[in-house]
Amino acid sequence: MLTFEGQKIQGSPNIVAKLTSLPFQQCQHSITTVDCQPSGPAGGMLVFVSGNLQLAGEQHALKFSQMFHLIPTTQGSFYVLNDIFRLNYA
Amino acid sequence: MLTFEGQKIQGSPNIVAKLTSLPFQQCQHSITTVDCQPSGPAGGMLVFVSGNLQLAGEQHALKFSQMFHLIPTTQGSFYVLNDIFRLNYA
Repeated sequence: MLTFEGQKIQGSPNIVAKLTSLPFQQCQHSITTVDCQPSGPAGGMLVFVSGNLQLAGEQHALKFSQMFHLIPTTQGSFYVLNDIFRLNYA
Repeated sequence: MLTFEGQKIQGSPNIVAKLTSLPFQQCQHSITTVDCQPSGPAGGMLVFVSGNLQLAGEQHALKFSQMFHLIPTTQGSFYVLNDIFRLNYA
């Protein structure tokens, strides 16, 4: 599930629909900090990221914070169970 | 466990020692956003907070982002398993 600027969106198809409907075509990410912690005995991982987003044609970068909760699959990879995104307004 | 500005601290006694050693006596929190999601079948909860910190005697507030992972206890309450804190520098 994704919480994007407070909007709650559940299920991969809905999340893909949201992300592809954002009103810009290009967005450059630069990551400032990454913090990780194991999330419990199930082998999950919490990732906390902050950085800047630079939209094409915009002069100023936007600051953001985002967290992911990654859960291991039986195939040895991870999927994203939780994703919370916020812009950090100045 | 706590990750505080990238510093990793594990165990309640170490976390209490860190928080009580911070170089100020008073800090006013004002919360701007709170987002929550369930973290999985174990009944945990992820809380993502952003806001401002106003230190006594400082003119400008500091922006911060923080996430908590709360795990239910058998006594019907929660404990903090994960805590990641970051200041958002302008």
